[in-house]
Amino acid sequence: DAPPCTDFDVAYFQSYSHLGIHEEMIKDHVRTDTYRNAIFKYKHLIAGKVVVDVGCGTGILSIFCAQAGAKRVYAVDASDIAVQANEVINANNLSDTVKVLHGRVEDVEIDEEVDIIISEWMGYMLLYESMLGSVITARDRWLKPGGLILPSHATLYMAPVTNPDRYSQSIDFWRNVYGIDMSAMVPLAKQCAFEEPSVETISGENVLTWPHVVKHVDCYTVTLTELETAETKFRLHSMMRAPLHGFAFWFDVEFGGPADLPTSNGDLSSDNNNCKNGGQRKRRTNPSEGLVLSTAPEDPPTHWQQTLIYFYEPIEVEQDQLIEGSVTLTQSKENRRFMNIHLEYTSGGRTLVKESVMR
Amino acid sequence: DAPPCTDFDVAYFQSYSHLGIHEEMIKDHVRTDTYRNAIFKYKHLIAGKVVVDVGCGTGILSIFCAQAGAKRVYAVDASDIAVQANEVINANNLSDTVKVLHGRVEDVEIDEEVDIIISEWMGYMLLYESMLGSVITARDRWLKPGGLILPSHATLYMAPVTNPDRYSQSIDFWRNVYGIDMSAMVPLAKQCAFEEPSVETISGENVLTWPHVVKHVDCYTVTLTELETAETKFRLHSMMRAPLHGFAFWFDVEFGGPADLPTSNGDLSSDNNNCKNGGQRKRRTNPSEGLVLSTAPEDPPTHWQQTLIYFYEPIEVEQDQLIEGSVTLTQSKENRRFMNIHLEYTSGGRTLVKESVMR
Repeated sequence: DAPPCTDFDVAYFQSYSHLGIHEEMIKDHVRTDTYRNAIFKYKHLIAGKVVVDVGCGTGILSIFCAQAGAKRVYAVDASDIAVQANEVINANNLSDTVKVLHGRVEDVEIDEEVDIIISEWMGYMLLYESMLGSVITARDRWLKPGGLILPSHATLYMAPVTNPDRYSQSIDFWRNVYGIDMSAMVPLAKQCAFEEPSVETISGENVLTWPHVVKHVDCYTVTLTELETAETKFRLHSMMRAPLHGFAFWFDVEFGGPADLPTSNGDLSSDNNNCKNGGQRKRRTNPSEGLVLSTAPEDPPTHWQQTLIYFYEPIEVEQDQLIEGSVTLTQSKENRRFMNIHLEYTSGGRTLVKESVMR
Repeated sequence: DAPPCTDFDVAYFQSYSHLGIHEEMIKDHVRTDTYRNAIFKYKHLIAGKVVVDVGCGTGILSIFCAQAGAKRVYAVDASDIAVQANEVINANNLSDTVKVLHGRVEDVEIDEEVDIIISEWMGYMLLYESMLGSVITARDRWLKPGGLILPSHATLYMAPVTNPDRYSQSIDFWRNVYGIDMSAMVPLAKQCAFEEPSVETISGENVLTWPHVVKHVDCYTVTLTELETAETKFRLHSMMRAPLHGFAFWFDVEFGGPADLPTSNGDLSSDNNNCKNGGQRKRRTNPSEGLVLSTAPEDPPTHWQQTLIYFYEPIEVEQDQLIEGSVTLTQSKENRRFMNIHLEYTSGGRTLVKESVMR
């Protein structure tokens, strides 16, 4: 049975009825170009096939699929933006190919199996917003055995960061305000600036270690239960001497082709197995492994930026110093679209715990 | 009797307990420098005198007044930021001079008359947030006859504007999205972009006519009743041929000295009389008339930017064409800190009405 549509879900869907958010996403050319490239790269697999676009928004990816020769595209969105998407489809004489379904993937009906699922479901820190659950539901309801999911894989990374500029801007600023010592503001400044996760853009220079894989998702096999929590331990060595200000999180998604499908007996490819339990992993560079949409600090910025969890106090770390700890991400009980972040780390004999909620 | 403190007031005060908003205001150097310059310009009037700072925030203006030699400064704020302001005062050994009062001006007690009121009370479109009411209350409760109010005068201006860039970014964008005609989105795009007043920065080049004075406020004589509504008719001539996209609003405040005080029989100076009923007015340039903090499009940008009311359709106007109409600003009944804006204008035989609410 379909899970109930909560007030939180309604608010979430409503937030996507404002067009500004779609404008921002479309104008994120890293995002839109990569999806478009993936669709046209797999043109030969899409032509003549049935596609479902989960969370279609304005319908742009559905139209790309129609342009790539899809026989039929089901464009599903629970937000009222679906009404306008339908008008766009009609105005472009695509209504024979693209069927807009205004509702949740749990609730709408599609009377055939689909060959391909395409979806831009990623939220901040990959899992915030929990839209991946809708992709899983669509997969389990409609995807043919051997069908294609785009993107096929997703990986959430983390790394310790130094960010003296941000720290001095928001915190040290108060130590000298027009010559006045307002240090009494510093505790409040830290709380206001660092209590919640901060979505901002950093550069590769802020990152102190190789990234650590927090979670690797295989869209073919991931389950709803698996999304409830992600836990990982990290052991990282600082590449330089610097004040450690917190941790950055980012993700990439890969548009793997049929070669990346799980084998018929359900095993994962060895590459996926290697990643399953986290650990350090370099970027795949083999183009046969498919296109990658990356939101890493060293790559061109996207509207996702990076998500930073700051500590209230910087910790000086030496070059090669071990930074170890664990992170647990949990869907919030009050609202599964929120995320609780529990971070523990030890460095130079000090252990710190930081709890925050991404709302 | 003091008006009740509504839920809206509580929410308003709470919004100022987050430090980020104070950081932004202090870092608006046009704002902070002008206040500081005014305080030191009137050093001779402040030295040895009693000051009240209405809505003191972090206490920065109160400290400037203490530095200028004030005998005593009452720093009043209803927001919890007053707690930190008090710590800043103590840490700077100013607690003998600066008394932080945590509460509304309607509720706190000051057992002496004050010589000077200083306040940074201006909101978007000058009157949004309605903090001027608190200045009036402080004046009527505590200000000595002949006392000084800084700033002494405030003027809200409006002018028709052309802004093709903004229009094409948010609206025409949808006419060609990756080669797809998404014009079906245009009505929603207009609603999302232009339904509410938009706070943004424009330049002098966007402005089509001389500014029109919507309201001139003399802080010595303005009453609470006068703030409930402001109405003005305008007749303006376009300086160029251009698409008219809407109207911009901005303000300036003047830090007039004792020469600008109303005369003892309560008359206003002729300068104020001239402005009382609106009409076009050039900027005062006579430095004897006091310092001016301007948020005009042709002046350096501030955190107030300008407030734009856009129409859903641009209207082509010719050079020298008459643009006439009226604007009515009303405190919202549901929340006096909100503002209803009723704008009517006629140009080239077309009359349009635009209603919006600043929330």
